[in-house]
Order: sequence, then structure tokens, then C-alpha cells
Amino acid sequence: MSRITALDVIDVRFPTSRTLDGSDAMNPEPDYSAAYVVMRTDHTADDNDLAGYSLLFTTGRGNDVACAAVRSLAPYVVGRDVATLIGDVGVLARELTWDGQLRWLGPEKGVMHMAIGAVVNAAWDLRCRIDAKPLWRVLASMSPAEIVQQVDFTYIDDAVTPAEALAMLQAAEAGRAERVDALLEHGLPAYTTSAGWLGYDDAKVDRLVRLAVADGFTMMKLKVGADIESDIRRLRVARAAAGEDVRIAVDANQRWGVDAAIEWMRQLADLSPYWIEEPTSPDDILGHRAIRDAVAPIKVATGEHVQNRVIFKQLLQAGAIDVVQIDACRVGGVNENLAILLLAAKFGVPVCPHAGGVGLCEMVQHLAMFDFIALSGSSDGRWIEYVDHLHEHFAEPVVVANGRYHAPKNPGIGAQMLDRSIVEYGFPNGPVWATMQS
Amino acid sequence: MSRITALDVIDVRFPTSRTLDGSDAMNPEPDYSAAYVVMRTDHTADDNDLAGYSLLFTTGRGNDVACAAVRSLAPYVVGRDVATLIGDVGVLARELTWDGQLRWLGPEKGVMHMAIGAVVNAAWDLRCRIDAKPLWRVLASMSPAEIVQQVDFTYIDDAVTPAEALAMLQAAEAGRAERVDALLEHGLPAYTTSAGWLGYDDAKVDRLVRLAVADGFTMMKLKVGADIESDIRRLRVARAAAGEDVRIAVDANQRWGVDAAIEWMRQLADLSPYWIEEPTSPDDILGHRAIRDAVAPIKVATGEHVQNRVIFKQLLQAGAIDVVQIDACRVGGVNENLAILLLAAKFGVPVCPHAGGVGLCEMVQHLAMFDFIALSGSSDGRWIEYVDHLHEHFAEPVVVANGRYHAPKNPGIGAQMLDRSIVEYGFPNGPVWATMQS
Repeated sequence: MSRITALDVIDVRFPTSRTLDGSDAMNPEPDYSAAYVVMRTDHTADDNDLAGYSLLFTTGRGNDVACAAVRSLAPYVVGRDVATLIGDVGVLARELTWDGQLRWLGPEKGVMHMAIGAVVNAAWDLRCRIDAKPLWRVLASMSPAEIVQQVDFTYIDDAVTPAEALAMLQAAEAGRAERVDALLEHGLPAYTTSAGWLGYDDAKVDRLVRLAVADGFTMMKLKVGADIESDIRRLRVARAAAGEDVRIAVDANQRWGVDAAIEWMRQLADLSPYWIEEPTSPDDILGHRAIRDAVAPIKVATGEHVQNRVIFKQLLQAGAIDVVQIDACRVGGVNENLAILLLAAKFGVPVCPHAGGVGLCEMVQHLAMFDFIALSGSSDGRWIEYVDHLHEHFAEPVVVANGRYHAPKNPGIGAQMLDRSIVEYGFPNGPVWATMQS
Repeated sequence: MSRITALDVIDVRFPTSRTLDGSDAMNPEPDYSAAYVVMRTDHTADDNDLAGYSLLFTTGRGNDVACAAVRSLAPYVVGRDVATLIGDVGVLARELTWDGQLRWLGPEKGVMHMAIGAVVNAAWDLRCRIDAKPLWRVLASMSPAEIVQQVDFTYIDDAVTPAEALAMLQAAEAGRAERVDALLEHGLPAYTTSAGWLGYDDAKVDRLVRLAVADGFTMMKLKVGADIESDIRRLRVARAAAGEDVRIAVDANQRWGVDAAIEWMRQLADLSPYWIEEPTSPDDILGHRAIRDAVAPIKVATGEHVQNRVIFKQLLQAGAIDVVQIDACRVGGVNENLAILLLAAKFGVPVCPHAGGVGLCEMVQHLAMFDFIALSGSSDGRWIEYVDHLHEHFAEPVVVANGRYHAPKNPGIGAQMLDRSIVEYGFPNGPVWATMQS
């Protein structure tokens, strides 16, 4: 019998603001950061104590608050029996989400909810390591009933019931094995955001778009929303470099109100953007619906800032979005993302995960692969976002080749970082930050 | 010229769980708590250094995270010129809300947003002390143009524009002086929640309801949602004790999904509850609309957990609520509450503030008084929630007499606590907590 012995939290920050990688209309100078979580146990495997690894992504300042939020959850997990915990992670997810005192800080939103997600994900990582499988395989090996058991249907059962969820998962059981083979052989489609950061000049956009096409990408994304003339010019540059067959989406990172979004997109419509992402506040369900009505056939996408399953439910009920963009670190962990995948499947809306940041590609690919194998059963109209930096800090960096994500092989959820990186980029005392003080 | 010299944050907790004061269907054992904020300056008045006092209310665990979030904002305020800061607090509110890195932790929701609200409110407290006026008087003395200037219309200008806001405030200028006089003479209507906590037995409900009626309350509220038989019985007890002329609202504290809310309220309908408060998730705009359609003529109320102006906007646009319940500590401070008051006024929906907790009565009364004097111009259909505990810890406890809130007289926003209380209830080292360790 083994127990959780500690929940360690480390503030890790990368000084990405110095190169404008990651720059967009709302985040001009992000320092991609992580509240890095290690759920330690006294369970020994191969002479090492087993641990669960997870992280909560932020863009710099506030990462200390994220760390504090995760640390505040240590009393809920330290001392737990490992076998019981990983036997049903949903128990932990419900306990943290419905804690009568913590709940005031959300409920189910913001830093505390993201911290709960990070702890829940660390428990999933532990389960994957004990099962000796990557997360996508653990999830895709579960029975429909076990998957349904992992989902909290509170506040969404007016849109999808446990019985409906079970039926969808059962319907997708046929073909699971073939889709596992297809995944292992071909991977899943990716799109790249690396060519179109707002801080890049035209020449850099042109060069990077050509490189992306040569690398096999059939879809890419440009940041927009700071200046309409510049957006039109950069979109033209990208279209000329990419050719007519490549999809080019645009992303405003919540820059606009409803009326401004409609007006701005009217001016970009001739350039046929595939979708407009985050046209306005992620909280504005009715606003997204109004925008979608006005900009069709351009699709509307959002999700990286959508706080929980209740907002996703309404975005789908209202017919407000064409694309669901789940994020590995925004909501209450794997369990709530399963709920969101079920909602998307119920409404027939494709899931194109948000990624980038630190470790988001490594983590979210597992959920897309589960969706492909065991739920939607399709990769049509689905791409996983890809951004080409900071992967070298991970124990198993993503493999994106020929424009596709290839399935990770190692046990875990993908969040484990290299010890060296954690030390080097530790904030504020790691060598990278210590030497930066002027 | 004086400057902000420090932002002190103190973790203060009251062990209210021991008496079940504050118990409801979702918060069975709250320990009412505050991240208490002191914005210190080197501005000397009456031989004391002037400071701005504020607090962020929580229900216990997680109060440390709230403290960490407020502390993370110190670099944004320490060193600022006091006169510039209080000359336009909206500048600080916008700067904190739109910080490109902090924004990832919300945006505009959860702990970080509440922390921003607490700091913004501390700046308002400072302004009130320098102006030597209570907040309600400061706000009610501002010109319509100055009030509009304090509001961030981003994401709400499709529902209320600055010009419309200005017009509403200008229309309410006539009669401001008379309403100040009326407020000073009669106060504003209160309703009490003290009679109906879920943990109270029938005899206690009967006794407290009779006491409340004797105290002059014409409206009160009962907690419901744990057990339908018990709810029916307690509501009958309360109705018998109160008589037919007293309004009795019920509050489910988000206990239900949409369908469950409709079914439960169908069973309570014969007992004519005035409103159903928080029937479901505060995020579920469409759900509130469905519930409202089904339970009319019972009114639907929510707000104490509504994270920001964007959700309130949609609740109003969708016709989802009959009552707007602002909270002094949930959103981005006085400035965002002004936005919410303007939205409510635009849609003609009355504002009945949420209060209770620690200091919420003391703080939110100012906003209701501003609304009465300078915006809605009416107290019809409006009551401020009142709960009768923890007031003794405040420098200027609320005065509720004959069922009405009487206007506070001292400078400030109402959040200043007694030094003695802060020491005694400091967590975890204050004497109250230190002696509780077994």
C-alpha cells in the first residue's frame, strides 16, 4: 500500500517576451510560465519513487498566485492511498470542485479552478505511469461506462445526460482498434500558429508561411486585431505565400466588442479566413452567436479561455460557435475536458484543441486522440494547434511531422519537464532570471 | 505630494462553522473570512498616516490564495502618487484588468479578479477619506460625465453605450438633493436572511421570523435546496409566523440543474415565494432564462457569484432574471459595479444587493444608496440583504433599524475593521485559531 507523500509546486518561467514569440493583440509581451506540480508518492517502481507530473500554464505575472492556489490543495491529497486515488480520479475531481469553502473562489472558474485541474491532472499522470500507458491509451482503453463515471453532469444534464453520453461512447466502440492503428500510423492533423504572431513583420510571416507549407501543414493561423491595415496586409502576404488550398484562420484574442468584431471581420472577409478565433470575451455567449450570424460562412471558434463546461454548454446550445477549442490547463482537468468533449459530440461540433504555451501541445494531444479513437471517431475538420517552441524542456516532446501530431509513447499525460529546465528557469532564483536583473 | 508606501494583506477568519450561521445547501460549514487590505500612504492627516481599507470576502479555505492574489498586485500600486490615483481610480482599474500577463488567470473572473476588485476598492476608500465623505456621497456627488468616465464599456457597449449611460445619469440629476434628504431621514429597505439558514430547526425559524417582523422587516429569505419536505415545512413555518403581507424569498445557492430547479420550484409554488435566488450555476444564462419562463410569476434572482459585467449583460439581454444582486467583493471593484448598475438601469431591472458574510453589508449599502440617489431614483422593489452577524468587528457597523439601512456617515467604503478583531481572528496565528488547535 502506497500513499501520496507531498504535492510540490515550482514556479517556472521562460522569458519569451524578449523575442515576441507568442505576441498577440491582448498579450503583447507574454513570459510563458508554469506552476509545475509534482504529486509525490512512496510507491517505488524501478528503484524510483513514483510521482505524478502536471502543470498549470500562465503567461508570466500571476504564476506565483497559481502556485499558491495549487499549494492550498496539498491537504486534500497528501496522505491519500494511491490505488484508491487512481482507481477513480473522478472522486478527487468532485471533492475539490464541490468543496463548500473553496467553491466561493469560483465557482469553477479562474485560478482556483485551474489549480484544481492541475491537481486532478497530476492524479491522471500517476494513473498513466502505474498503468504504463500514455493518457490517450488509458482513456481509449476505458469502457464507455467507466468514462461516463468520470464525468460530472451537474449543470449540463439539460444538454447531455449520462445515458446519452453512454450511447455515444458505445456507438463509437466499433472501430476503436482500427482507429488506434490509424493514429499510430498517420497521427492526427495539426495546424501551426508559429507563422503569424502579431509581433512578426511581413518578411518573417512570408518566410514562415512558406516553411510551414513545406513542412506539410494544410492549415495555419494568424493573429489579428491590433490594426486593420496591418491585418489585411499580413493576411495577403500569408495567402500569397500559402496558396489557395491552405486554410488560414485568424485569431483576435478577445480584442473586440460584438459590433467591432463584426465590422472588422467584414473587412477581412474577402481574404477568406477559415475561422475567427476569440472575436470577443469568452464569457459572451450571446455575443458569439451574434457574431457568428453576421460573419458566416467564416466559422467562429473559442475555448482557450472558456472557464468550464457550463459556458461550453451554452455556446453549443445557442449555436454560437463552429469549433470547440479545449485547453489542457483551463478547466478542472481531464474529467471536465471529457464532459466538454461529450457536449461537443452531442452537438456535432468539431474539437480543435488550443495549444502552444508551455506543455499545452504535449498535454492536449492526448485528449484529441481519445476523441478520435473513442468518441467522435473522425479527424474531419479537426486540427490540433501547434506552436514550435519550448518543447525541448519536456521529457517527451511532441512529435509533429508532415503537418501531423504523432502519438506519444511514454506513460503519462505529457507534462513532465526536464529537471535541468526546472532549475534553470525557476523564478525568481534560477540562473536565467537571476542573471537578468540589471 | 504623497505616495502609496505599501499594500498590506492580512488573513482574517471567523469560525462561523461552529454555529451554522451562514449554512446553506452548498456551504454547509462556512468560516466567514476576509483577505483584509490596507493601502498605506505617507499622506499625514490628523497626525496619522492615511490609508485605504478594503477586503475580499471568502468562506474559509482559499482565503490564503485570495491573500496571495492581492499581494501579487502590490507592485502595481506601491510608489504611485496618491493625488493622481484617487483623481481617477478608473485608470488603476483598467490597468489591472487589462494587464496582458495577469489577464490569463481570468480573464475578469475568479480569485485574481476579486483581488483586483479589492485593490480598486482600497483606492476608493482612500479617495473617500481624503474627500472626508462616505462612498455613497462621493459617488452621488460626481457629475454624470465623471461617473461614465469611471466605467469600462468594453464587451458591454452592445447593450449600453457611454452616451446612453450619460443620458440615464443626467435624467436622474433632477431630484438628487431630495433623495439625499429622503435617504438621510428614512434610509433604504432591507430584507433579512438571518431567520432562514438551512441549519436552523423549525422552532428557531419560527422564533426568528417573528422577531424579524417585530423588527420591522417586510421581506425575508429562507435557504432551500437540500430536502424538499424540509423546505416545504420550513416555508410553511415561516409563512405562518410572518403573515401574508411579508415577502418571503428562497435561495438555493446553485444547488440544482435547470430541470431540477423547475421541478423543485413547482413544489414550492403554492407557498408563493417572492423570488428564487441562485437556482443553478451563476454561469448558466440560458438556464436561468428557461427557469424564469417555467416558474413565473415567481421572480428569478442571481448575482453574488456572477463574475463580471459580461455575464450580467447577458442575463439582462436574455431576459433571464428579474432581480440583479450585486456584490461588493465579487467583481472588479466599485468601477465594475457602476457598469452593472448602469446595465440594470438600462434594462429596467431592480438591484437588490447581496450582503452578509464579513463586511458585505457595510460595503454594498453605499452602491445601493448611489443607485437610489443618482441612477434608478427609486427604492420600489429594492431591498438590501441584511444578515445580523460580525458587524461588531467594523469601525462603522451598519445601522439597520425598523427594517431599513440607515446611511453611513464616516468617510470610506465601509470596510475598515477594528485592529483588535484583526489580531484576534488572524489566521492561523491569532488567539482564536491558536487556541482551537486540539
